[in-house]
Amino acid sequence: MPYINVRLTRKDITTEQKAQIVREITATMQSVLGKRPESVHVVIDEIDPENWGYAGELTSVHRKRQG
Amino acid sequence: MPYINVRLTRKDITTEQKAQIVREITATMQSVLGKRPESVHVVIDEIDPENWGYAGELTSVHRKRQG
Amino acid sequence: MPYINVRLTRKDITTEQKAQIVREITATMQSVLGKRPESVHVVIDEIDPENWGYAGELTSVHRKRQG
Amino acid sequence: MPYINVRLTRKDITTEQKAQIVREITATMQSVLGKRPESVHVVIDEIDPENWGYAGELTSVHRKRQG
Amino acid sequence: MPYINVRLTRKDITTEQKAQIVREITATMQSVLGKRPESVHVVIDEIDPENWGYAGELTSVHRKRQG
Amino acid sequence: MPYINVRLTRKDITTEQKAQIVREITATMQSVLGKRPESVHVVIDEIDPENWGYAGELTSVHRKRQG
Repeated sequence: MPYINVRLTRKDITTEQKAQIVREITATMQSVLGKRPESVHVVIDEIDPENWGYAGELTSVHRKRQG
Repeated sequence: MPYINVRLTRKDITTEQKAQIVREITATMQSVLGKRPESVHVVIDEIDPENWGYAGELTSVHRKRQG
Repeated sequence: MPYINVRLTRKDITTEQKAQIVREITATMQSVLGKRPESVHVVIDEIDPENWGYAGELTSVHRKRQG
Repeated sequence: MPYINVRLTRKDITTEQKAQIVREITATMQSVLGKRPESVHVVIDEIDPENWGYAGELTSVHRKRQG
Repeated sequence: MPYINVRLTRKDITTEQKAQIVREITATMQSVLGKRPESVHVVIDEIDPENWGYAGELTSVHRKRQG
Repeated sequence: MPYINVRLTRKDITTEQKAQIVREITATMQSVLGKRPESVHVVIDEIDPENWGYAGELTSVHRKRQG
């Protein structure tokens, strides 16, 4: 414990950004709850924009319209 | 809120079908719970049939046997 | 399959509303993807507003401020 | 988007700690990925120690043994 | 890793049954994938039958009809 | 019901291993809870090691260091 799942749309998120997200969320668990880093799991799910619907439409459609 | 996650096996689900699922689930949240569409997230996970076990066997095996 | 998980904050959602959500999402799977109703699972998670953070604050705090 | 789910065992986590976790994770999404706070959802699931198994045993049993 | 989430309807599942599920799933990860037990997390979510829809209706309604 | 989600990092898990995991977890639900196999769904999510953070770093980085 704890297990943290981060779900976001796949749009050029770099390896370094993933590493930074893991570092910061692990640090939050440590500073706020006193959790040992070795007990913290952070899993990032990169979702295809075509599979994430928001406000009734696919994000891929929304982004195409935004140009 | 709300956040809706739809998990189904990947078998030629078209973009239009995804868009229709998002439209209809968003409309359900609006009509039943009065939610604003801009507050509704619908995420579709397409799972490889080899990764979905049902009745003790992989769906990929089940489908091959069904021909 | 499919498995649909609906996550929303707990705020007096009635049994009838839950039944209506299940009916409508099951009907969507049937009409859009041709799924048999007996293959559709819809699980509703009611989350305490104090456990759902949005825009950097707890929903319970946000709702108190809204009065 | 993004949607972040934090799962941890229920052991006297205060409202202020929840608020701090939401603040920090939202700030991480903003600083690392440039996400607007209004697009970030953080949901905390507090799991009964009797329902979280680790290393083959229930956490409730593990904690009792630890005294 | 791995993280296993077991979702089932709440219907008098005893502590011993939970312990047995955790033991067996952990043993499966060990025997099939060679995972160390200390790397295996098994989280059991007990869902209110009123919150689990199946075949278009709430399980609570289905069970009442079954007597 | 029940629905079981197995999340693990993608590292040459064979089809036969997936089939064995599904068989064993389904057998556990049957022997411990008396569930019919036809009611048991087991979904395996294979996560890219670069997307699974543990002890503050990406598993891909950790594994490279382990050689």
